[in-house]
Amino acid sequence: MSAPKKVVLAYSGGLDTSIILKWLEVEYGCEVVTFTADLGQGEELEPARAKAELLGIKPENIFIEDVREEFVRDFVFPMFRANAVYEGLYLLGTSIARPLISKRLVEIAEMTGADAVAHGATGKGNDQVRFELSAYALNPDIKVIAPWRLWDLTSRTSLIAWAEKHQVPVPTDKRNEAPFSVDANLLHTSSEGKVLEDPAVDAPDYVYQRTVNPEDAPDAPEFIEVGFEAGDAVSINGEAMSPATVLTALNDYGRKHGIGRLDLVEGRFVGMKSRGIYETPGGTILLMAHRGIEQITLDRGAAHLKDELMPRYAELIYNGFWFSPEREMLQAAIDHSQTHVCGTVRLKLYKGSVNVVGRWSERSLYSEAHVTFEDDAGAYDQKDAQGFIQLNALRLKLLASRERKLKG
Amino acid sequence: MSAPKKVVLAYSGGLDTSIILKWLEVEYGCEVVTFTADLGQGEELEPARAKAELLGIKPENIFIEDVREEFVRDFVFPMFRANAVYEGLYLLGTSIARPLISKRLVEIAEMTGADAVAHGATGKGNDQVRFELSAYALNPDIKVIAPWRLWDLTSRTSLIAWAEKHQVPVPTDKRNEAPFSVDANLLHTSSEGKVLEDPAVDAPDYVYQRTVNPEDAPDAPEFIEVGFEAGDAVSINGEAMSPATVLTALNDYGRKHGIGRLDLVEGRFVGMKSRGIYETPGGTILLMAHRGIEQITLDRGAAHLKDELMPRYAELIYNGFWFSPEREMLQAAIDHSQTHVCGTVRLKLYKGSVNVVGRWSERSLYSEAHVTFEDDAGAYDQKDAQGFIQLNALRLKLLASRERKLKG
Amino acid sequence: MSAPKKVVLAYSGGLDTSIILKWLEVEYGCEVVTFTADLGQGEELEPARAKAELLGIKPENIFIEDVREEFVRDFVFPMFRANAVYEGLYLLGTSIARPLISKRLVEIAEMTGADAVAHGATGKGNDQVRFELSAYALNPDIKVIAPWRLWDLTSRTSLIAWAEKHQVPVPTDKRNEAPFSVDANLLHTSSEGKVLEDPAVDAPDYVYQRTVNPEDAPDAPEFIEVGFEAGDAVSINGEAMSPATVLTALNDYGRKHGIGRLDLVEGRFVGMKSRGIYETPGGTILLMAHRGIEQITLDRGAAHLKDELMPRYAELIYNGFWFSPEREMLQAAIDHSQTHVCGTVRLKLYKGSVNVVGRWSERSLYSEAHVTFEDDAGAYDQKDAQGFIQLNALRLKLLASRERKLKG
Amino acid sequence: MSAPKKVVLAYSGGLDTSIILKWLEVEYGCEVVTFTADLGQGEELEPARAKAELLGIKPENIFIEDVREEFVRDFVFPMFRANAVYEGLYLLGTSIARPLISKRLVEIAEMTGADAVAHGATGKGNDQVRFELSAYALNPDIKVIAPWRLWDLTSRTSLIAWAEKHQVPVPTDKRNEAPFSVDANLLHTSSEGKVLEDPAVDAPDYVYQRTVNPEDAPDAPEFIEVGFEAGDAVSINGEAMSPATVLTALNDYGRKHGIGRLDLVEGRFVGMKSRGIYETPGGTILLMAHRGIEQITLDRGAAHLKDELMPRYAELIYNGFWFSPEREMLQAAIDHSQTHVCGTVRLKLYKGSVNVVGRWSERSLYSEAHVTFEDDAGAYDQKDAQGFIQLNALRLKLLASRERKLKG
Repeated sequence: MSAPKKVVLAYSGGLDTSIILKWLEVEYGCEVVTFTADLGQGEELEPARAKAELLGIKPENIFIEDVREEFVRDFVFPMFRANAVYEGLYLLGTSIARPLISKRLVEIAEMTGADAVAHGATGKGNDQVRFELSAYALNPDIKVIAPWRLWDLTSRTSLIAWAEKHQVPVPTDKRNEAPFSVDANLLHTSSEGKVLEDPAVDAPDYVYQRTVNPEDAPDAPEFIEVGFEAGDAVSINGEAMSPATVLTALNDYGRKHGIGRLDLVEGRFVGMKSRGIYETPGGTILLMAHRGIEQITLDRGAAHLKDELMPRYAELIYNGFWFSPEREMLQAAIDHSQTHVCGTVRLKLYKGSVNVVGRWSERSLYSEAHVTFEDDAGAYDQKDAQGFIQLNALRLKLLASRERKLKG
Repeated sequence: MSAPKKVVLAYSGGLDTSIILKWLEVEYGCEVVTFTADLGQGEELEPARAKAELLGIKPENIFIEDVREEFVRDFVFPMFRANAVYEGLYLLGTSIARPLISKRLVEIAEMTGADAVAHGATGKGNDQVRFELSAYALNPDIKVIAPWRLWDLTSRTSLIAWAEKHQVPVPTDKRNEAPFSVDANLLHTSSEGKVLEDPAVDAPDYVYQRTVNPEDAPDAPEFIEVGFEAGDAVSINGEAMSPATVLTALNDYGRKHGIGRLDLVEGRFVGMKSRGIYETPGGTILLMAHRGIEQITLDRGAAHLKDELMPRYAELIYNGFWFSPEREMLQAAIDHSQTHVCGTVRLKLYKGSVNVVGRWSERSLYSEAHVTFEDDAGAYDQKDAQGFIQLNALRLKLLASRERKLKG
Repeated sequence: MSAPKKVVLAYSGGLDTSIILKWLEVEYGCEVVTFTADLGQGEELEPARAKAELLGIKPENIFIEDVREEFVRDFVFPMFRANAVYEGLYLLGTSIARPLISKRLVEIAEMTGADAVAHGATGKGNDQVRFELSAYALNPDIKVIAPWRLWDLTSRTSLIAWAEKHQVPVPTDKRNEAPFSVDANLLHTSSEGKVLEDPAVDAPDYVYQRTVNPEDAPDAPEFIEVGFEAGDAVSINGEAMSPATVLTALNDYGRKHGIGRLDLVEGRFVGMKSRGIYETPGGTILLMAHRGIEQITLDRGAAHLKDELMPRYAELIYNGFWFSPEREMLQAAIDHSQTHVCGTVRLKLYKGSVNVVGRWSERSLYSEAHVTFEDDAGAYDQKDAQGFIQLNALRLKLLASRERKLKG
Repeated sequence: MSAPKKVVLAYSGGLDTSIILKWLEVEYGCEVVTFTADLGQGEELEPARAKAELLGIKPENIFIEDVREEFVRDFVFPMFRANAVYEGLYLLGTSIARPLISKRLVEIAEMTGADAVAHGATGKGNDQVRFELSAYALNPDIKVIAPWRLWDLTSRTSLIAWAEKHQVPVPTDKRNEAPFSVDANLLHTSSEGKVLEDPAVDAPDYVYQRTVNPEDAPDAPEFIEVGFEAGDAVSINGEAMSPATVLTALNDYGRKHGIGRLDLVEGRFVGMKSRGIYETPGGTILLMAHRGIEQITLDRGAAHLKDELMPRYAELIYNGFWFSPEREMLQAAIDHSQTHVCGTVRLKLYKGSVNVVGRWSERSLYSEAHVTFEDDAGAYDQKDAQGFIQLNALRLKLLASRERKLKG
């Protein structure tokens, strides 16, 4: 790969990406463009602008954007239509944000004439894969710079030393490594590394940042109603909301009631297992609510097919293949199923748990006439079950007959 | 179908199966054999013997058995190795008990020279299918009698009248229908029908029989450790236990902490949707614990394949195909994966929720050496990620190149 | 079910459906509407009109339509986009025609105010299921009459006697049963029953009606080029053709070269196995051609997902679930993949076999630059393979380390 | 990676692996052990011994083995139980041989105290991946040397020059590159590269080495009978044979009748598409025969599950994951299904095509009593179909009712 001339960097404003910013300039003598996105991580963006300027980035090369609505509308919601969970439990909060960041990096590269993009993910994790597969899928000629795989600043000491040598300001509280590493956006906060590296040992309380401890949550349950249109949440307690607003509100409910904590050891795409602490307050409520509304509005055949496709779909997102034909194919199938997934779900939130307690819809497929224990006025003829069972049993009987014949 | 001469009836000792017992005699003039099983439903069995005798069944035709260990060892545990849930949430507590009952009915029929078996499931539900597919799969020539599909006793009044006319004792509290219908065994209690038929309306508190309300559960969390061998739970807090004993103990923990309640609308195999309230206290803990131990002992490739196969596996059990070649094939694959699923999981139980907080195993695949944020002493070469990403990206780049060429 | 007042009958003009026509009138005293479709079965339609009139059907109740283009465009082609084969070999020629017939029956019922439809399929086969599931999926209130399941005319003799008694003309050559049963349309001819019922015995030559015996096919191979747009065949040897015209032309090629014969024992949806002889000349060529063009235009991820989804998709069509949400979901996924499946395939036809010998496309993903054994000018860095392999191997190494540790 | 001390080389005796042999010695100063296997590639092995000796390898370091029976018994046959084809057409002839070679390399390394193995596959292909994943899965500490990814001998000229400089004898006919590259074993011959690199152009006749041109095959068809036990071919025309003998005999039949030629563009695991010409004469017959015997002996539920799992299974083998938990899980499921796959299949071989024309088995599930068009003496009650269809239709009716209500 020839040296890049102009690089768009995914820039948080923090120490690590500030060092990367400087390192790109020093290493390649290239121009750096910064991109800082508000994905709902809960940090001010303007300090990132100030830092970038302080580090000498030209104002026209500083891009700061609020992408929360796009994030929820075009990434989080499509994924939740699939009820996606990775390895049975993980709601993919980090995975789903990466493709959006890469998309904007590539778009800004094209706008500014940059020939490369750069990110601050390490060589051991999944995020490098997600960033880079997305970037290459959108621009096959883009260069991707991953400094953590290139430089030799492998200890905190050497990193700080390099920063000081190159006039990157080092805040006092960053001189030592954090006790664990954090990623956050509107969907979740993940924590991993360091104090969390022994999966036998309970995560310390201070790791949790986004939810109260269930023990500290209110002693009374709270009930909310989430409205859906075509598989997406559109209202809470009757109040219509935009995608990001819905998720923000659900996050508030989840935080308050200690909902959405997960302590997981997962299999990374790069091959090893890692342990993460995830907090997905609103997403956990949303998943349960979505299942609740599907229960009455989604046909069994469609629902079961979705359940069978889901693990693959989740794996694709986890592995970084959001922008791939196979993820898009699965999305087409999933989206096709959601047309009538409309209605309202009533949920009980209480000390760490969320449960559906009621659901209703004008598009419900639930037929009390058919299912009732009472007289059904001919809606269903119980005698039909006889033939249904006989024909389902036929091949099993033929198998049993063979078995008996062989046994003599 | 010619009239049966001798019928083995799945007999609970309750009013409904007592009426069926008499009806079989009246309708077919046949001999009746009763089979009453202790599946952990929490009822005394001896009263069933007394009732059968009172109804004139010969002592040698009364079979009463404690099948709890067989139930958990040969049915529940194999199913939990698969992490089976139906439609994302239901732990299949009723479904998994039916094949065992049918197996014993068929075996007793062969022992006693009966040519038919009978059950008390209605023509609208899944249980008739499960009973009958299992029976036919084990004996292709057996007759199965399902009185609810045959007689015209479609109202409570006509049923009671028939009973009185035929000297079947009717307890006063059974003159009116129960406000909902219940099935119970060591794995779960299910409630459905009547007061539960409107899925928009919260289930009343009195429906729950097996778990305390989370609000009434202890205010302090409790931590337990579940030990596993080859995918099956074998101990709690270090104490070795038999399969049924483990599940019983987990049920106690779950009941106390209000764990395992589920309000679900599900798609029945016979075609309509129905609403059920399930309580699976021990099973809910067991599922979480099993996922916890798999997290460190099961390879990612195996785990993901299991997750993809699971919905089909669960559907087969739900639909009554336990004794089918395809369920057995999936079981063979699942069981193959469990050899090394050994170790201990630490769980937090608190007011309705159960979470893994730690797990360890001598067979762990988790490698702190590989995943660590610290110096890994060469266990993992971050530069390998470059090639890994490039080759995974190659086809995406070729796609993107085509896209660009077409757009001109 | 109350008696029908007006019935739309799928009417071929043959003896069996003529008897059904009369039987419906006799049995229910109802008005009969006939629907006769040209699906490419190779028979004149006007004789059916004459027969219907002869049997007293009012002219306005006789519907005769050429649906060949709709059949290929809306049913056959979507199915071939999926490369659908049932049980590895069967091209679903009968299965795919049934939903179209049901669709027209239901539409004509709605146009003519009929409350029922009727078909001539027996109670042992799949076709009854396909007809009826399709009808119910399109009109939940329609009645479906299946006389073969209702009457007691179970022998040829009784059937002929009934016909004669009710003035249904019986052609001399129909007095005895045919030596086997045939279904035909533009996609295929199937033969089954009678002389074919022993699956150990070769099908006699006279069973084959639509293809020459490969031994009698030309001694020289013929090469043709099939053009594709978005996954559908649109031209042969450069000549643009409509869907039905393409398939007709491919049938001619296939017939001439003895292509598309299949002797199969298959598992019916109703539970037993049956043996059929299928001739699908054009379809066999089309399947191979479609795979040929996908080879260069379809991404590997999309192609493999399609291959995994195909058996389920084929099963749905075989079982009669064309008009189901899950078939439509899969179709959405499949269709999404076909956008760029454009180009030309060159095929060799010779004495029963068809093979791709060349393929080219402006949308090809094949990159000689990447794959070449010659110098690739940097298109591909062989060193990337090292990292690719190392990270794919990582979990396998961790497994092997555990294995070694356990063995001591 | 530290330099290897002793390397086991997969050695064919040809020029390329002879150069590698010498290069390993020159580059690492290490001891070389050669392993040459008879996989049925049709070449004498003793010349390889002579060459190795000539190049200075110590006799005790030369391993020459006939592994044909192991190859067919433990690799080819298990794969054929699955009816495995990659991308719809490729019988995986190269893929399935690699794990066996790696297994022996690793075993010989352990026997001889070698710390590394080496192979002659290039950095662009799948074989490097298959060799190395297998090696690492069997010995996590082994080093794998892939000289083609390491050296700079990227042109034929430089390679020959290096050979001459280091006293590796260069046969005159090897001074120029072959017009295409070949891999062969008892299952197949593959040809690729050079003259085959344009997928639009017909492969020249001289590429085919293992089958006669169908035009040159006998003018009369030949019929053979293949016997099966538990899914494996065990006899031809009644004569019992060992696995390798069966495959050898089927190869002879296939060669004679021009069966098993395939011109394919496939998606490689390393990301690009490549074009190969495959000849799999015996395997093509075997696949058809296996499907034929499964048709009557394998239950529909098992067969359909197998068909759904097959593409994944084939992909795993293609990608090099033979020694992986997920391949083994799928194998366990597949093998479980094969217990009763016993019987005989009659096949017609004629000018490039192979078709099943008859099959019989003592374990047949085919029931003429059930399927017959004649009177079935009560084996099947056609009225059962009514209930079967009604309950299968129920959810479709509920969907249609919703649709009508919405359009309302």
